[in-house]
Amino acid sequence: MSNAPDELVKLARRTRAAQRVLSAARGSERAAVLRSVAGLLQCRKQELIEANSADRRQAAQQALAPSMLSRLSLDAKKLDTLCDGLETLAVSDDPIGRPLRRTLLDDGLELTQVASPIGVLLVIFESRPDAVIQIGGLAIRSGNGVILKGGREAARSNRALVACLRDALVEHQLSPDAVQAVEEREDVRRLLELDGDIDLVIPRGSGQLVRSIQASTRIPVLGHAEGICMVYLDRAADLDMARRVVLDGKCDYPAACNATETLLVHESLLPRLGDIGSALTAAGVEIRADPASLPFLPGASPASPQDGAIEYGGLTVAVRVVRSVDEAIAFINEHGSAHTDAIVTADPDAADRFLREVDSASVFHNASTRLADGYRYGLGAEVGISTSRIHARGPVGVDGLMTTRWLLRGHGQGAGDYGPGKRAFLHKRLPIDER
Amino acid sequence: MSNAPDELVKLARRTRAAQRVLSAARGSERAAVLRSVAGLLQCRKQELIEANSADRRQAAQQALAPSMLSRLSLDAKKLDTLCDGLETLAVSDDPIGRPLRRTLLDDGLELTQVASPIGVLLVIFESRPDAVIQIGGLAIRSGNGVILKGGREAARSNRALVACLRDALVEHQLSPDAVQAVEEREDVRRLLELDGDIDLVIPRGSGQLVRSIQASTRIPVLGHAEGICMVYLDRAADLDMARRVVLDGKCDYPAACNATETLLVHESLLPRLGDIGSALTAAGVEIRADPASLPFLPGASPASPQDGAIEYGGLTVAVRVVRSVDEAIAFINEHGSAHTDAIVTADPDAADRFLREVDSASVFHNASTRLADGYRYGLGAEVGISTSRIHARGPVGVDGLMTTRWLLRGHGQGAGDYGPGKRAFLHKRLPIDER
Repeated sequence: MSNAPDELVKLARRTRAAQRVLSAARGSERAAVLRSVAGLLQCRKQELIEANSADRRQAAQQALAPSMLSRLSLDAKKLDTLCDGLETLAVSDDPIGRPLRRTLLDDGLELTQVASPIGVLLVIFESRPDAVIQIGGLAIRSGNGVILKGGREAARSNRALVACLRDALVEHQLSPDAVQAVEEREDVRRLLELDGDIDLVIPRGSGQLVRSIQASTRIPVLGHAEGICMVYLDRAADLDMARRVVLDGKCDYPAACNATETLLVHESLLPRLGDIGSALTAAGVEIRADPASLPFLPGASPASPQDGAIEYGGLTVAVRVVRSVDEAIAFINEHGSAHTDAIVTADPDAADRFLREVDSASVFHNASTRLADGYRYGLGAEVGISTSRIHARGPVGVDGLMTTRWLLRGHGQGAGDYGPGKRAFLHKRLPIDER
Repeated sequence: MSNAPDELVKLARRTRAAQRVLSAARGSERAAVLRSVAGLLQCRKQELIEANSADRRQAAQQALAPSMLSRLSLDAKKLDTLCDGLETLAVSDDPIGRPLRRTLLDDGLELTQVASPIGVLLVIFESRPDAVIQIGGLAIRSGNGVILKGGREAARSNRALVACLRDALVEHQLSPDAVQAVEEREDVRRLLELDGDIDLVIPRGSGQLVRSIQASTRIPVLGHAEGICMVYLDRAADLDMARRVVLDGKCDYPAACNATETLLVHESLLPRLGDIGSALTAAGVEIRADPASLPFLPGASPASPQDGAIEYGGLTVAVRVVRSVDEAIAFINEHGSAHTDAIVTADPDAADRFLREVDSASVFHNASTRLADGYRYGLGAEVGISTSRIHARGPVGVDGLMTTRWLLRGHGQGAGDYGPGKRAFLHKRLPIDER
């Protein structure tokens, strides 16, 4: 049952109130909550697996696609992995209050910019129930409140997992309202209208889901609607390396947003392009080649004008010939999705220009676009990959769930104490103690 | 004359194209452009002052308020100050490419997060023509494109100043289109619809202007609609210090967004509140006191239920009695505008709680709310003060005009090279060379 609009405003405000208390709790307390969540996942293993089995039985009756069914499943091994993840989060540095900048404005007047939670997050995700614990764990660690909307096909699993998060908060005398769940699309639609009560929306799912959410809210949205990742093979590319980067980028996981969709090839490489073409064809990849490259790629089909700026999401790749690194950069900036783009070259000047001028969230030299990922970047838990230009760009870890506050500690100073003929500001940058 | 909608799309895209070239220019080149702007301001001093005189004559005929007339004026001294500001920007560290995080993912696979320009900014400001040079200078330094919309009353001055910025770009073989100007409200309305072509809107002006812009665009808006700043006088406040902080906060510049609007007073201070009350009254401040404080504040008028959560913007202050630091924190989080709030206390525990739990962009201990300002914080040029919760919060300097990119430099690695039984990521944090 969907909630009345009024109830959703109250729910969002209860989340804010609980979040404020949670964010004021010591880091060690928030870490202890995460360990209690892990404890509950172990205690309730049987119950959780049964709830998940019921979801899966129903999904099977409804003839859900096998890939969705596999993502839906929650077994003892996945629960153990979730517990490991919670422990990793619990031992990680407390993100709240981390000093980012310190300045002595005057003797006895010290300014510190510190990291703070954003506030109330609305996270919308599709079938994977493990996301409840991953996102809920991140929210608790970072002192954010979170309203979760999972897929309907995982409703029973999600409810049982949300209960673990809420019960763990209660164990530590914290309000369970910092973690909320809604189940109806209609509720999401109404929550997206509450731009005063919800601070950030994180959709995790198809480009279509992300685009439809971006179009229907004034709340900032962190996510990516498209991943049209490109690889430019420069005239100075090592072709053996190029083949490895291209094959990994296209074939490692073709459905991922960071899979390679377009190859831009320097014209001088054309006579030697056959090896890469055969390797792609052998891996089952359909090549859509522009007129200049088609004669050099046996088995390729002719590209349409749209090819080169399409997210195929499968075993298809477009090939276009360019005459220079400039043309490659211009094509990527014009037709890419500013997600992840790579150059393969042994020429350091070409690499420098590409890394400086391609205006994408991730820009790589001699590495596969598939490496654009929060886990691979060492960010720990990943919230998602952002193609927004502000706040957080590219793979987003816990830092993306933080904002800043400025703390000023003085001895009664006012603005009127400073100015011509009065005191002058020192503005001395102070070192930040790294923890 | 306003532009046809199509023309505005073209204008925004020309700005993006020029911005990409500007951001790829070396820092020393962008600094040289700023010095050329300063040179042109000096060469064209006579012409600029004449254009401004014409604006002022017309404004005087239209009976513009004297405060507006004074903000409108541009004289030789103001031009010198603008040149000093440009020189300060020119010698400041180049913000583009500044490394923020370095991680060795594996031997020969290094990740660097660097600062990058946001892209295309739309800045809307009211009568002060000096803002053209301040904002244009910041945009050029930070490699952003900017579309400026100034007040109509300064149209001639603005045009002459924009010409200096554009001509300086041309002097250095850069496209003048990185700096654009529009003059009609209708143009702004249409530009606000271009959420694919403009990345950030910065309104500098009244709360009404900011609110109306926030309500009419899907582009992120950096600014503040309200400044309801509060000061809590704790039971352990030094009353002499409290008087100084309150008088400065209220009287230093009452029209500013960081002026103090509400005093929260611990009940134990009531018998000694008279001194602060008389000092405020002597400074011409109208005190609106709640029933508990009214008997202790001779000359105060009774507060209405709305007082305490109003931005007066003038010599009025609300006084409310609270029974604890908790009550003060809860009142501020509920009724303030999350701009700047302060505690006066000699009790370090009360100060710590206040600084940790007040969820505002700036939170002060024993200092006046008027100190919340980019110049006073040592940020150099100030873009504005943000009450957004994401991206940039509080006073915003050049950092607020930057976003990030992730650069990965490898030797042909792919995602498939890592995993169980294969290579493992090192994820070794590397030091950042501070410049």
